Amino acid sequence: MEKESLLLTIAVLGGTGKEGKGLAYRWAKAGYRVVIGSRFSEKAVTTASEIMQLLEGSSSVVGTTNLEAAQQADIAVLTVPYAAHRETLEGVKDALKDKLLIDVTSPLVPPKVSKVQMPAAGSAAQEAKEILGENVQVAAAFQNVSHELLLGEEEVECDVLVTGTSKNARTEALRLVEATGLIGWDAGPIENSVVVEGLTSVLININKLHGSSHAGIKITGVSKDS
Amino acid sequence: MEKESLLLTIAVLGGTGKEGKGLAYRWAKAGYRVVIGSRFSEKAVTTASEIMQLLEGSSSVVGTTNLEAAQQADIAVLTVPYAAHRETLEGVKDALKDKLLIDVTSPLVPPKVSKVQMPAAGSAAQEAKEILGENVQVAAAFQNVSHELLLGEEEVECDVLVTGTSKNARTEALRLVEATGLIGWDAGPIENSVVVEGLTSVLININKLHGSSHAGIKITGVSKDS
Repeated sequence: MEKESLLLTIAVLGGTGKEGKGLAYRWAKAGYRVVIGSRFSEKAVTTASEIMQLLEGSSSVVGTTNLEAAQQADIAVLTVPYAAHRETLEGVKDALKDKLLIDVTSPLVPPKVSKVQMPAAGSAAQEAKEILGENVQVAAAFQNVSHELLLGEEEVECDVLVTGTSKNARTEALRLVEATGLIGWDAGPIENSVVVEGLTSVLININKLHGSSHAGIKITGVSKDS
Repeated sequence: MEKESLLLTIAVLGGTGKEGKGLAYRWAKAGYRVVIGSRFSEKAVTTASEIMQLLEGSSSVVGTTNLEAAQQADIAVLTVPYAAHRETLEGVKDALKDKLLIDVTSPLVPPKVSKVQMPAAGSAAQEAKEILGENVQVAAAFQNVSHELLLGEEEVECDVLVTGTSKNARTEALRLVEATGLIGWDAGPIENSVVVEGLTSVLININKLHGSSHAGIKITGVSKDS
């Protein structure tokens, strides 16, 4: 991660889903080189060309397999459903050596997705760290954002809480949050991921009770400048 | 809990701390009968008279032991440091039979209070439920509010996430949130308490990094009226 930020290549693994596509769009728009990864490279190529069309060709987005995307990446972002979390990580583990993984996964357990049910590791992000081992830094972010909003131009009224295995991991992840136009906050060590991932279930509960689809959170009472 | 709301007696156990005192003040101001409980009844009597002075005598606040407060209560609210959580609950267990306990505790483990470290039960509120047994309903609320703000008149810019062992427990607790002038949200089952309690550590981390003392959260993207 010694390169200038905008020379970095971001791999969005599972980037054909709406979560990954929205993030990929925002980063490509900000000038990053983006590689969409998928189990099926054709799907990734299609998503990449859709994003290029939205941006009228003025950006660098390509599509390939998750493995190739991870190999090309400086930073990888994981946006798969929790059911595919472990398998996807095991498939790209070697390619992520000495890199940063940003885990977007909320470990929802259908059908009770509004009830917090964490894996034995404590959270999806801690499970990712266990799978990837000592040579990979892990941060967690973006779990609470309605990602489909990211494909539009309207303001996304949701802050991003960022946890991570090191201060450096959180700082790098916070830079990518800023690049999407959202406000990010350092939410502490990776053990705090349970809060951020679990908040997704709380917001789903609030959405369900109030007939909404985009409940989010904002941090109050503190200025980013201080 | 069949009585009219404003005839209810609220016991604030550990109510001599700033957390409990702020809540007691707001509920007394709203017209509830409030009993402050403490390990030392003299301290509770002093706190009660301080609150009466703030309200110029126009309310009902008395002080006594935690046990007597729990006996007199329709609803009990627990505002002790986590170190006193189990002992306090065991001391009032019988007095809380068929009542609602609202647990305000965040299970912070000094010195690393900005790192989420939950008890084996999953959260303080779940631990309370384990201690109190089947005959007591438990809700959790107010962990993220800077309680000293409650003693003032300025707007507290922090929403309250409410979890609970039943819909009824959450509804009763949400009514008491409204009575404090804050905005409350049904955050789902008691298992979701890990999010709300853990959020306290996240907010402490944000306070520390940004030189603030009152970081809070607001729910966005959803209207209470819908």
